[in-house]
Amino acid sequence: MLTLYYAPGTCALATHIALIDAGAAFDLVRVNFAQEEQRKPDYLSVNPKGRVPSLRTERGILTETPALLAYVAQRFPQAKLAPLDDPFAFAQAQEFNSYLCSTAHVAHAHLRRGHRWVDANDTAAIEAMRRHVPVSVTQIFELIDTKMLKGPWVLGDTYSICDPYLYTLATWLEGDGVDLNRIPKVREHRERMAARDSVKRAHAEQSKAAAA
Amino acid sequence: MLTLYYAPGTCALATHIALIDAGAAFDLVRVNFAQEEQRKPDYLSVNPKGRVPSLRTERGILTETPALLAYVAQRFPQAKLAPLDDPFAFAQAQEFNSYLCSTAHVAHAHLRRGHRWVDANDTAAIEAMRRHVPVSVTQIFELIDTKMLKGPWVLGDTYSICDPYLYTLATWLEGDGVDLNRIPKVREHRERMAARDSVKRAHAEQSKAAAA
Repeated sequence: MLTLYYAPGTCALATHIALIDAGAAFDLVRVNFAQEEQRKPDYLSVNPKGRVPSLRTERGILTETPALLAYVAQRFPQAKLAPLDDPFAFAQAQEFNSYLCSTAHVAHAHLRRGHRWVDANDTAAIEAMRRHVPVSVTQIFELIDTKMLKGPWVLGDTYSICDPYLYTLATWLEGDGVDLNRIPKVREHRERMAARDSVKRAHAEQSKAAAA
Repeated sequence: MLTLYYAPGTCALATHIALIDAGAAFDLVRVNFAQEEQRKPDYLSVNPKGRVPSLRTERGILTETPALLAYVAQRFPQAKLAPLDDPFAFAQAQEFNSYLCSTAHVAHAHLRRGHRWVDANDTAAIEAMRRHVPVSVTQIFELIDTKMLKGPWVLGDTYSICDPYLYTLATWLEGDGVDLNRIPKVREHRERMAARDSVKRAHAEQSKAAAA
């Protein structure tokens, strides 16, 4: 049995959707960020990085969204969530997900996690980062919109592990101050994703657990 | 035939070493960062992100180090550079590489690429980022040293695509202001890597091309 540790509003949503897409049986454990549970010993014993998502498997814990998404695709190959038998096509999927984690997510993180990269007391620098997020995230998503997202799905005609990840980061765009009119393909992709049963179910499960 | 686009001193070194480890035949093309070639049309037609590494293959261009490293492992399976037949173990390798790209490399990038995350004219904020790099990179490498690097190689007894990537980032540590005495396993890993023929060859090839 798999257990996904998540917090609402985080990139854990991507793995959550992929697990549903894969037809996986899994439990959900909410990590309460408001109470800083991610920095307490119980959770640090799960993931010493103090972040979500984490996925408990029969063989141990796995973390990092691109790794988890590829793992879900490989563990449930019948769901055809990645081109597993074609190293070039698989690399294209991984290239996209790697860009999301190392560039898109990182740019977004400068909105509320600026203390990772400057002294936490340097409010001017933290505010400078926050102010720049609309610029940096818009640039990144314009590149995604014009050069990467093939449509209707990220890789073209076939839905893959790239889609829930792009969708997850796209749910943050209004909060990042991005004008969605500048990225029409991303906006349409987000709408296409939001209409999927797996996405609706993931949102419902996260809301239910959050309210419990 | 494969062609690796690289610049000296960048993370392209990881893929370069892995290609040698794999026994691959490949050409090297240096992108001259001093002349900002990475932002000029010729290179942007290779990689619209304006970064290295890029790998030209018979089927098109691939980018992003974690994707390239997994691609090299999958394309040259006889080199046994990743646990390709074990989704959990493969995910562990990918988890490590994903942490390097999204957290370790990003922390380092705040030393000289601060303009990505604040207004380029905000010299105070850019300087605040630069000052914090020794703190953030030390924290990240202490976590790698104590929780991730199993030894003698990243994944334990078997050399993998994680090793050239860790090595590459570890060559930046002095420049990042990190005291290597605080991360003895990383320091030993770097020495172990530096003694390998593939690493020596990669350095020699990059020096030769840089001098040409």
